Amino acid sequence: MKIILASQSPRRKELLELMGIKKYEIIVSNLEEKMEEKLPINERIQKLAYQKAEAVFNQTQGERIVIGADTIVEKDNQIYGKPSDKQDAINMLKTFSHSKVNIITAIAVLIESNGKIIKKTDYDLSEVHIKKMTADEIERYIDTGEAFDKAGAFAVQGKFCVYIEKINGNYTSILGLPTQKLYDILKEYIKFTN
Amino acid sequence: MKIILASQSPRRKELLELMGIKKYEIIVSNLEEKMEEKLPINERIQKLAYQKAEAVFNQTQGERIVIGADTIVEKDNQIYGKPSDKQDAINMLKTFSHSKVNIITAIAVLIESNGKIIKKTDYDLSEVHIKKMTADEIERYIDTGEAFDKAGAFAVQGKFCVYIEKINGNYTSILGLPTQKLYDILKEYIKFTN
Repeated sequence: MKIILASQSPRRKELLELMGIKKYEIIVSNLEEKMEEKLPINERIQKLAYQKAEAVFNQTQGERIVIGADTIVEKDNQIYGKPSDKQDAINMLKTFSHSKVNIITAIAVLIESNGKIIKKTDYDLSEVHIKKMTADEIERYIDTGEAFDKAGAFAVQGKFCVYIEKINGNYTSILGLPTQKLYDILKEYIKFTN
Repeated sequence: MKIILASQSPRRKELLELMGIKKYEIIVSNLEEKMEEKLPINERIQKLAYQKAEAVFNQTQGERIVIGADTIVEKDNQIYGKPSDKQDAINMLKTFSHSKVNIITAIAVLIESNGKIIKKTDYDLSEVHIKKMTADEIERYIDTGEAFDKAGAFAVQGKFCVYIEKINGNYTSILGLPTQKLYDILKEYIKFTN
């Protein structure tokens, strides 16, 4: 079965390969992301992931699996994306210092199999407890360069690790792809091998 | 200040470098690991980490920091190390399937600074919730080869990710080094840079 990842994230690519999926295509649609502000956050994120997958599903044919995903950082009902500049990154980390943030990753999987179309969405919410950071530590972290292409201006898998007290949730979801949930969806349709 | 890692684990080496520590030596003593069965598990592990660090501290001189660590997997008060063979790995994963295991990592830091000797130990306990695995899945995972040099026969950072539901704890501690606790100890004695 043809597998299409509707995301250009290098981390999602790595995680898909870690799951044992070696043969897949990457197709990304030029979808303009629009959040529906009225929905609860986890539904909004699932809708975004679904829209990304659907756009690619609609422009492809045949037996196929299209995987879309979306990740956001949330604190006090506010959503944080990638920082626009250094000051923005500083402000985000000041806000996150000595607090708990939520990382939500949604997946959407659209499948055409035996003439039927199957649509699945799911999400994971993980809590990340961040230690108190001094202004110097925030500055030093941002100077590593890790902050700029990450939602919320930090990467749990990188040099930010010394500021993370604990995580309650799923690690690969935090990185951008809920591998365990995706595996459960996909194993009905494809045979996993090493 | 000279830094010595009293461990040959490649994962601990990577994590130490991720913390920004680039210049360090690795010195390992031929200590025979002996668990004191009567102590609570977290104290036993701290004692082991301490013994590893102490042995290296005692055979070195001058201003220095020696870091020892020990990681174990525990379930129902039983400790699991590296599997001895394939059957042992299968048995461990059968025991862990559809359950919660604890991963405990202890660190011990011995410092000689300005003629004073400072000794610190600490530990992190993380819960890993493992999904139900079929016999086929256990077999397939073991065939990846990841199981054999890992306590408990699995690596959270590897292909086992699809079987992990959630983690409550510290991720780098699960990998083998509590970077956030180590950073807090070390920052009084060394200047961290990027």
